[in-house]
Amino acid sequence: MKALPHWLADVCTAVEAVLSERFLDAWPPSLKEAIRYPLFTGGKRVRPALCVGMYQAIHGNVSFPKPLLAVAASVEMIHTYSLVHDDLPCLDNDDERRGVPTVHRAFGEGPALLVGDALLTEAFTLLAEQPLPSEVIVQLVTDLSTAAGYRGMIGGQGADIGMNGPVVDHKTLSRLHRLKTGALLQISAVMGARVAQATPEQLAQASAYGQAIGLAFQLADDVLDAEEDQKEDGPPSFVKLLGVDETRRQAEALRKNACEAIASFEEPQRLLELAQFITQRDH
Amino acid sequence: MKALPHWLADVCTAVEAVLSERFLDAWPPSLKEAIRYPLFTGGKRVRPALCVGMYQAIHGNVSFPKPLLAVAASVEMIHTYSLVHDDLPCLDNDDERRGVPTVHRAFGEGPALLVGDALLTEAFTLLAEQPLPSEVIVQLVTDLSTAAGYRGMIGGQGADIGMNGPVVDHKTLSRLHRLKTGALLQISAVMGARVAQATPEQLAQASAYGQAIGLAFQLADDVLDAEEDQKEDGPPSFVKLLGVDETRRQAEALRKNACEAIASFEEPQRLLELAQFITQRDH
Repeated sequence: MKALPHWLADVCTAVEAVLSERFLDAWPPSLKEAIRYPLFTGGKRVRPALCVGMYQAIHGNVSFPKPLLAVAASVEMIHTYSLVHDDLPCLDNDDERRGVPTVHRAFGEGPALLVGDALLTEAFTLLAEQPLPSEVIVQLVTDLSTAAGYRGMIGGQGADIGMNGPVVDHKTLSRLHRLKTGALLQISAVMGARVAQATPEQLAQASAYGQAIGLAFQLADDVLDAEEDQKEDGPPSFVKLLGVDETRRQAEALRKNACEAIASFEEPQRLLELAQFITQRDH
Repeated sequence: MKALPHWLADVCTAVEAVLSERFLDAWPPSLKEAIRYPLFTGGKRVRPALCVGMYQAIHGNVSFPKPLLAVAASVEMIHTYSLVHDDLPCLDNDDERRGVPTVHRAFGEGPALLVGDALLTEAFTLLAEQPLPSEVIVQLVTDLSTAAGYRGMIGGQGADIGMNGPVVDHKTLSRLHRLKTGALLQISAVMGARVAQATPEQLAQASAYGQAIGLAFQLADDVLDAEEDQKEDGPPSFVKLLGVDETRRQAEALRKNACEAIASFEEPQRLLELAQFITQRDH
């Protein structure tokens, strides 16, 4: 994993340059400031890394073409909007994220609502303006809107706030997380494959990698949460249902599945390391 | 205007059939119910009518092809999301809309937030799946996301909640309304022209019609509000700045501009009547 931290830092820098160019013409000026605030508070950029890593694995090079970075940035904008709305008092009611006040604490609830709406909307403007074949852009819009929408992330959030009763079993919890966090992680990998003009077989492999990594990410998260905090009254988690050891074992099995799915790609090494980084991270 | 009410009713029926087909696979079930609720509470469907009317004016027929109706429905979904989020306590805090409880009063604030997010996201899924040329779909995504985003509707909402200080002059109020309601009305007309595969000249004419109608709509709204309610402490309005007579005069001038812009189209009659309906409506 020697090269991974450098590569991840390069992905962050390159994607942040794209994000930094957006929203400069937002009006009124205080809206511009509020939109840019949550984009630059130290996210790990896991989704852009999955997108860029998948492109490079299939395409067999290490360049960061601008349209690829824009596609990666669009996923990060969707992820950021979901955090801003999740943090609002009517959902999770969080005062802090990544060590700084949440958007609604810093700018007010109305502005935070609009910030999320603006990030969500602009993700599609950004996709649509890329110099990629129109057929690819249409597919990317379908990918991103489906993963982010009621069939994906929003459906998971709905279940998370108890719109369908309490979550009590493993199957329902898996479904919730597959929707809430897994769908966007999975599609990040698929969208990188689309930009690389992957074959249908490669797309299926990218999708399998992304799906396994998406669930492994959540299992690893639950293990981290359990180590930090042994409370019994928190939200349902895999650790509570399965115990720490079994949750770890399942995460490791998913990591292996993910790695097998893309082993035949031209440059799989970075995705293999990324899978390890995601499932064994310690923060 | 004899034919217009029938045609408007036909547009409503046809677009509502498209909306009715969406969200049937939403999960959890209570999310599906909450998403569908604001779509079917008696909107006038002005934006779909502008979209369909423009297509028919350029294309010279009166058919409702399915992709056209889907494009019209996507605009209505964006309009509906904006109402759901606007009604939330952190923005306008409205308990009723169109004579029924607002979404957050009927389902709760968290669900209402997610309903708006889902409608906004699904509008792009719907556009991307249409059997139209990919180049046209990419343009439609750009149109809709730009009009709905921080350069359009959201920018106007930001200004509306005082993110840039109070609105005191005619120029700022015009800008606010051009963004807040005008951008989406204008793009509805433009998107109908795109589906009709309009020439660049026709697109410019459709855009000019939409822009004039967008502002005329707001002027007419302000006149209606002033007639219903003479309060001095309401939000800034054109009537307060210009008086009723001058506001009416300007709305009529805009209606004429709009009609002149599309007078050379093959079947302009319906758009002429629609302009009159919008600027002289009494509710």
